[in-house]
Amino acid sequence: MAHSRQFISLAEARPPFFVGVDVGGTNIKIGVVDDLGRPLSWTSIHTEVEKGPGAGIARMQQAIQQVIAQTGLNVGAIARIGLGTPGTMDIAKGILLSPGNLPGWWNFPIRDRLSEAAGLPVTYSNDAGAAAYGEFWVGSGRVLHSMVMFTLGTGVGGGIIIGDLHVEGENSAGSELGHMIIDYHDTARLCSCGQRGHLEAYASAPSVVKRTEELLQEGRKSSLQARIAAGQELSSLVIDEEAERGDELSLEIVLETARYLGIGIVTAMHAIDPHGVVIGGAMTFGQHETQTGRKFLQRVKQEVCQRAFPILAQRTTIDYASLGGDAGYIGAAGLARLAYSRKS
Amino acid sequence: MAHSRQFISLAEARPPFFVGVDVGGTNIKIGVVDDLGRPLSWTSIHTEVEKGPGAGIARMQQAIQQVIAQTGLNVGAIARIGLGTPGTMDIAKGILLSPGNLPGWWNFPIRDRLSEAAGLPVTYSNDAGAAAYGEFWVGSGRVLHSMVMFTLGTGVGGGIIIGDLHVEGENSAGSELGHMIIDYHDTARLCSCGQRGHLEAYASAPSVVKRTEELLQEGRKSSLQARIAAGQELSSLVIDEEAERGDELSLEIVLETARYLGIGIVTAMHAIDPHGVVIGGAMTFGQHETQTGRKFLQRVKQEVCQRAFPILAQRTTIDYASLGGDAGYIGAAGLARLAYSRKS
Repeated sequence: MAHSRQFISLAEARPPFFVGVDVGGTNIKIGVVDDLGRPLSWTSIHTEVEKGPGAGIARMQQAIQQVIAQTGLNVGAIARIGLGTPGTMDIAKGILLSPGNLPGWWNFPIRDRLSEAAGLPVTYSNDAGAAAYGEFWVGSGRVLHSMVMFTLGTGVGGGIIIGDLHVEGENSAGSELGHMIIDYHDTARLCSCGQRGHLEAYASAPSVVKRTEELLQEGRKSSLQARIAAGQELSSLVIDEEAERGDELSLEIVLETARYLGIGIVTAMHAIDPHGVVIGGAMTFGQHETQTGRKFLQRVKQEVCQRAFPILAQRTTIDYASLGGDAGYIGAAGLARLAYSRKS
Repeated sequence: MAHSRQFISLAEARPPFFVGVDVGGTNIKIGVVDDLGRPLSWTSIHTEVEKGPGAGIARMQQAIQQVIAQTGLNVGAIARIGLGTPGTMDIAKGILLSPGNLPGWWNFPIRDRLSEAAGLPVTYSNDAGAAAYGEFWVGSGRVLHSMVMFTLGTGVGGGIIIGDLHVEGENSAGSELGHMIIDYHDTARLCSCGQRGHLEAYASAPSVVKRTEELLQEGRKSSLQARIAAGQELSSLVIDEEAERGDELSLEIVLETARYLGIGIVTAMHAIDPHGVVIGGAMTFGQHETQTGRKFLQRVKQEVCQRAFPILAQRTTIDYASLGGDAGYIGAAGLARLAYSRKS
């Protein structure tokens, strides 16, 4: 799924061109994208967080030159760079504040430093928001007028896009959909952020593992026990695999996760009433490719049908993301394109 | 609070001028507003729902002529009419669908019929959304870049405004903030919409009454019992009065309502990250004018401080609405002004 995207040739491409940069804690993905959101070239470098942000900028700049050279374009043909990073951040000022997975890069003016190094203007955004914009622009949401995206992984993130407006938030903290409260009681599950009852505490990969461990401790039988006995660490991926092989408990956990996600989707639907909802991130159970993925999506839709206003349940599309790991750099490039089109 | 707004004279006013029409189940409020959102004249007519929408349009048209004449302007000086109605509705088509408090007016093309009768273009919006826009334009939210409004009354409604974008929703059902799920369990309170666990089931006026009745049935002592014994029907207004007179149980109910509202506000803050939150509607406990109103707002803020991301809790303003019952027609006029400025 992640890297199946085909590149187009320069002859097919439509200018202007944009570079998208998607900074993660482990890797940085960089690609050149044309005016229709089609990648011409792509690369991935190690973030090497421990070497600090200055070295990171130098490596990004080299990689940007390299991906541009691969296309046959020269730097002058690039209109703008789009840069997405994890938060916390100050988007207006272009500064990384205190992102948990970029230790040592805190309070770093990443936007302006990249702009100086690359000699191009840079549009800065949140990585989850950029991925959502990528899906909205040329991915699963390309036919939608407005979209809410949920990304499932270590955390639950999101993005809200309404027409040309990408909801960044007044404090660069918009679309933190994993931190909507779905259970206000003091007995609710604890979220990674320290608060209780957030969607993320029910629908993230660590929560899937935690809920599974609880059922195993209750003495439930599962093929997971053999995997654990063989030294395998319990993960959402292992649970996904066993669900696909017919393990009842694993499937139960997957469908329970779908139910919680459906509850969060209903709140977002009632608040925003988007044209469609897109589900992406690392933990999407094989999407349409596997039985488990299809059952997961079906269970999400079932919960939405039961809980949402009937007209919204009927009309709002819900589907998986389609750009996989490319969504971030494509979307960052798309947001750069938006900024470029507004300025020119 | 509601009708304290002062009118400005034609000499002080700045053209262009707009007419705002706020249709409710009991009354229709109509006012002439200048380019800075200041009313020049104002009137209220009975909706007389039972006489049907055709008669309603005729009465609106007469009242519009009357409020325009009162200002000394002629109809030609009015740039556009703004019309707000309760939902359900189809905003793009300008049609009332099946609003619960306008029986007999269902499936009526109210926008175009009013436009024909008045001889002016009409911008159509949801009444809660219009009120939110009014507060954003010239009310409590006038200094904000983006705003989420909660309106407390028979239901819990809302409005979301981000820059110049008023979130109407793909199906004219945006900003139904009372129907965010704050408790996903099957044991959660039942909402007026038939679903469980919605904010409205905890923070609307009927829910305040219901929660009070429950505590009284448990044998709790309260000065409310004397009011009931005297033949008074229990209402959020009576509970507000007794809270202000020092009744412990009444104040407990008010503060519990504030707590629930705070929980809903946190979800909206994490999803949207607005510049500020505004609380309006009929049930706001005297706002800043009474001890109960001040304690209510304080308790809302306390819950937000406990539950929201620290930076958002610190930076996001939370305050009462300031336009009272004028917010609807002023906001409808403001949305007409937005549409007018985009066209010219």
